[in-house]
Amino acid sequence: MDLTTIKNPEFLKKMSVTQLEELSEEIRRFLITKLSATGGHIGPNLGVVELTLALHKVFDSPKDKFLWDVGHQSYVHKILTGRAGEFDTIRQYKGLCGFPKRDESEHDVWETGHSSTSLSAAMGMAAARDLQKTKAHIVPIIGDGALTGGMALEALNHIGHEQTDMTVILNDNEMSIAPNVGAVHSILGRLRTAGKYNWVKDELEVLLKKVPAVGGKLAATAERVKDGLKYMVVSGMFFEDLGFTYLGPVDGHSYDDLLETLQYAKKTKGPVLIHVITKKGKGYLPAESDKSGAWHGTGPYKIESGDFIKDKNVPIAWSKLVSDTVLKMAREDDRIVAVTPAMPVGSKLEAFQKEFPHRMFDVGIAEQHATTMAAGLATQNMKPFLAIYSTFLQRAYDQVVHDICRQKLNVFIGIDRAGLVGADGETHQGVFDIAFLRHLPNLVIMMPKDENEGQHMVHTALTYEEGPIAMRYARGNGLGVELDSELKNIPIGTWDVLKEGSDTTILTFGTTISMAMDAAAELEKQGISVKVVNARFIKPLDEKMLHEIFQTSKPVITVEEAVLQGGFGSAVLEFASEHGYYDTRVERMGIPDRFIEHGSVTKLLEEIGLTKEEIINRVKKLVTPTQKRLEVK
Amino acid sequence: MDLTTIKNPEFLKKMSVTQLEELSEEIRRFLITKLSATGGHIGPNLGVVELTLALHKVFDSPKDKFLWDVGHQSYVHKILTGRAGEFDTIRQYKGLCGFPKRDESEHDVWETGHSSTSLSAAMGMAAARDLQKTKAHIVPIIGDGALTGGMALEALNHIGHEQTDMTVILNDNEMSIAPNVGAVHSILGRLRTAGKYNWVKDELEVLLKKVPAVGGKLAATAERVKDGLKYMVVSGMFFEDLGFTYLGPVDGHSYDDLLETLQYAKKTKGPVLIHVITKKGKGYLPAESDKSGAWHGTGPYKIESGDFIKDKNVPIAWSKLVSDTVLKMAREDDRIVAVTPAMPVGSKLEAFQKEFPHRMFDVGIAEQHATTMAAGLATQNMKPFLAIYSTFLQRAYDQVVHDICRQKLNVFIGIDRAGLVGADGETHQGVFDIAFLRHLPNLVIMMPKDENEGQHMVHTALTYEEGPIAMRYARGNGLGVELDSELKNIPIGTWDVLKEGSDTTILTFGTTISMAMDAAAELEKQGISVKVVNARFIKPLDEKMLHEIFQTSKPVITVEEAVLQGGFGSAVLEFASEHGYYDTRVERMGIPDRFIEHGSVTKLLEEIGLTKEEIINRVKKLVTPTQKRLEVK
Repeated sequence: MDLTTIKNPEFLKKMSVTQLEELSEEIRRFLITKLSATGGHIGPNLGVVELTLALHKVFDSPKDKFLWDVGHQSYVHKILTGRAGEFDTIRQYKGLCGFPKRDESEHDVWETGHSSTSLSAAMGMAAARDLQKTKAHIVPIIGDGALTGGMALEALNHIGHEQTDMTVILNDNEMSIAPNVGAVHSILGRLRTAGKYNWVKDELEVLLKKVPAVGGKLAATAERVKDGLKYMVVSGMFFEDLGFTYLGPVDGHSYDDLLETLQYAKKTKGPVLIHVITKKGKGYLPAESDKSGAWHGTGPYKIESGDFIKDKNVPIAWSKLVSDTVLKMAREDDRIVAVTPAMPVGSKLEAFQKEFPHRMFDVGIAEQHATTMAAGLATQNMKPFLAIYSTFLQRAYDQVVHDICRQKLNVFIGIDRAGLVGADGETHQGVFDIAFLRHLPNLVIMMPKDENEGQHMVHTALTYEEGPIAMRYARGNGLGVELDSELKNIPIGTWDVLKEGSDTTILTFGTTISMAMDAAAELEKQGISVKVVNARFIKPLDEKMLHEIFQTSKPVITVEEAVLQGGFGSAVLEFASEHGYYDTRVERMGIPDRFIEHGSVTKLLEEIGLTKEEIINRVKKLVTPTQKRLEVK
Repeated sequence: MDLTTIKNPEFLKKMSVTQLEELSEEIRRFLITKLSATGGHIGPNLGVVELTLALHKVFDSPKDKFLWDVGHQSYVHKILTGRAGEFDTIRQYKGLCGFPKRDESEHDVWETGHSSTSLSAAMGMAAARDLQKTKAHIVPIIGDGALTGGMALEALNHIGHEQTDMTVILNDNEMSIAPNVGAVHSILGRLRTAGKYNWVKDELEVLLKKVPAVGGKLAATAERVKDGLKYMVVSGMFFEDLGFTYLGPVDGHSYDDLLETLQYAKKTKGPVLIHVITKKGKGYLPAESDKSGAWHGTGPYKIESGDFIKDKNVPIAWSKLVSDTVLKMAREDDRIVAVTPAMPVGSKLEAFQKEFPHRMFDVGIAEQHATTMAAGLATQNMKPFLAIYSTFLQRAYDQVVHDICRQKLNVFIGIDRAGLVGADGETHQGVFDIAFLRHLPNLVIMMPKDENEGQHMVHTALTYEEGPIAMRYARGNGLGVELDSELKNIPIGTWDVLKEGSDTTILTFGTTISMAMDAAAELEKQGISVKVVNARFIKPLDEKMLHEIFQTSKPVITVEEAVLQGGFGSAVLEFASEHGYYDTRVERMGIPDRFIEHGSVTKLLEEIGLTKEEIINRVKKLVTPTQKRLEVK
């Protein structure tokens, strides 16, 4: 069938298993073909084709509510709910979002991106349903990786206690993004290999029948044995213990098993957890045989060979530059250890892991634990490198405040993917970190202008003994500059003048330096002399240099790829206010007060006016004040 | 013995159980007497007297490391480590801290205040120990309430998986601050009532011996029955499943049981969890018989009667004003529900709970889940009131960003205990919320000047349908103003001029309004005319009024009981910069860039210079610029 003709999932109700299987193959071909051109989360979606069709066949969306945890596995759901025609635009500017989006469809009832939120949201929806006395099945679909996130466990604890009606689908593919860690993962492993526990139950019945009739305490014990059956063998006792009816494990690629179990769950009162075993990348050999996580989310690829289509000779990725430098230093200093919340691949820590397996801690999707574990390491004179994406550091805000900064512990926080991240969109933009970290006492925050300064900053961070220090770095690649062979320290709180100029000063750092330099060069041609400063320390500011700049009374403009409110530019305004520089005009450029959707970083920067052209415009206005401004003056 | 002569816990090693019991009584008397004058966390500490003594007898602090989760139960530990002499100053300015403090003693190896951090820190310390090849027992002591916090569960998952050597003490007193909720709590309940499982084991042996000899599969099953013993009866299977050796339940007031179990745990490889049952308030009848949580932390009390010594006729507490108004509105609007993370008493939600038990959700210590559950409720057209302390909202920052603000959901966040909180000190100060929330798109943030405005703000929040809205309110009591009988709406983003004036304008809100008004009155006498504005909306600002104020070019001073960096004052600076008001001087008063320790709020405000006198000084300087400033100008 032509998938783009699908308007809603109604048609599935009448389909036979054979027809569903045929449709599954079509959807797989569609996904493999479309994503080979656009890139996207191919592995997770190939794994949930049968599961998604079965869910839409058994339940009635949007009356019944599917909550896709993390959400990158919602492509099949998008196809079944009338969005197949938009797949050419997926994850592109103004195109289909790579995650559930309430604006896109009434079938998207909960937006995700970050992991482990679906159970809490499902509990809220179920509570609302029960108060409103309506009927709806609430069906969160959560992966085995996301399940170990703290908030998912908090929700399991609450849902099990309240005995709220819902059907939790545990989509167990034995890896989230990278292979999983943790005791819950081990429990799932035992469950997977245990098979059905019914045969044990049957045999026990036989066994117990052989026990001569006994009375009193012994009889009670025999009863207890029967009651305890499900606990005795490896079954879902962990989940049963938490108050859930555990069903499974179910083959997530068998319609017979899926449909039967879902129907059964639909009729069961209280919370049910269906343990579904799926295979990531199912049906496409390169993705199916991937062990590393490379096929979790990809760029474009060649369908036949599974080769990724990549730009050749791109400079080193920022993550790699940082992790390589940490590794280099770890060879000299055995106090250095690395901690990652489930991102050893994204954070490019594979080499570190290989060389120092005992000094590397992949704690699973558990940002809070990762952060405080790093703090615990630091209390014992270790030098932990906490590698964490800016957007995921949001989940460890309190741990940074309460455990790291308050105790002034020597943790090096590597804030990866800082700034706009592009295709992942608004849930993943790393634009808040300056605003949520800058007000924390004891914390140093820095961002390098290029890879060479980056490696020196890593050195600075790992030799700094005065408390926590954070370094932001962008998603994607560096500039391709040469690296010094010797690492050195950059004095804390010092900025660097990149270009002298007399009419105005641009203060900027990291990714926006190049547009500032380009703007300055162009303005120079137009007779405006612009000083450009690499404000590489966001905290503390280079107060000495700021005094020099403000004493000239020339206008200052700040440029940052981060939110404006409470950002670096505001720090400069605060400095000016504190030191009485009332005569100097300060203007700020950055990310405005709204969530920034998906699209290429270039497109997004254009949209929000963070470009060379806009810097030129703003500088021109600044150095030639308008009549209005002069009047006010 | 004279407890103040204790220098370190060495002396315990030689003590007999009888001597330990006598010492326990002395410590209880000491705590009951001392805290009757100062107040403090009496209930938790009376509950852990035997446990703390037993820990210090069996382990060797500070080589072995005790991590007191939450930390308010560390008083006995403080007595045993040489701090009994300082108890008259506990929780007071420059006095003994009510939580573990590394500066106070080498025996305090980890600082706490917020819950559920101890296991992650213990994992960090244990990892460091193993890398450094030293020997130390790592002993986190965590309550049953704190155990259900997400990060504690993340840590359990990781520790169990890694099989790291440590002894986790689960201090199960059946209530954390209020009675507990959650499935883990139910599990603990079953464990408590199960008693020793040995008798069942013995009987099963007998039972199985009665089974005629069988071979093959049946024999294997019989073996499995034996192996499964500990799972079959209610035992610690939940924790065993997570990879821990479960020991218990142990009577936490029996030295014989405690010492035996601790010794056994000390020799056991891998992670051990000892389930210790204690009684909060043990040994002091008023505290021991408390069911409500009133004796968790108290002010001064009369020892004999257990009556709290309270100021009479104090105005209504802010928490009560807010919760009462929510309750009043909930009678008219059945969409209104309340969500609290384990703080029904602190948030004064008892009346709401009594009247609308099904519309009140106490989710346990689980701020992340509480916040996203509120978001889930809001997607279904409910109006959730999320009652949460400012300091604990830190733990739900990502949920506010990613789930509530990004999806623009109608959640009313009641930010309780905003501003300085006094005796609880630096872990609990509610001073960061403006800085960590102000940059979030779609969020309204407000703070009322008094109870009457407060009740109208609650009405405003619960009738607002444009997205999330937060209201800050202080710890402690209101001003005693009269309440309007009719609730009304306050237009979003409107400020209120409290006093006209022509020389300068003070912009302030909430608790600092009174000092600003007092300062203005005094300045008036000295010939300086000060306008005072109730800047009750921190976001959005009253831009209309700001334009009027800035167009006068008169200096502006902002005053807030919150951190300066990225705070309300910075929002005003940002406004001035954005609108080109370069000629107006703006000065900011607020909390400086360091953590603020414990002490009375009055003392702390004096220390940081947030007083009427300092406002007067600053205004005087502002309206009569110094020579230096004139030169710069």
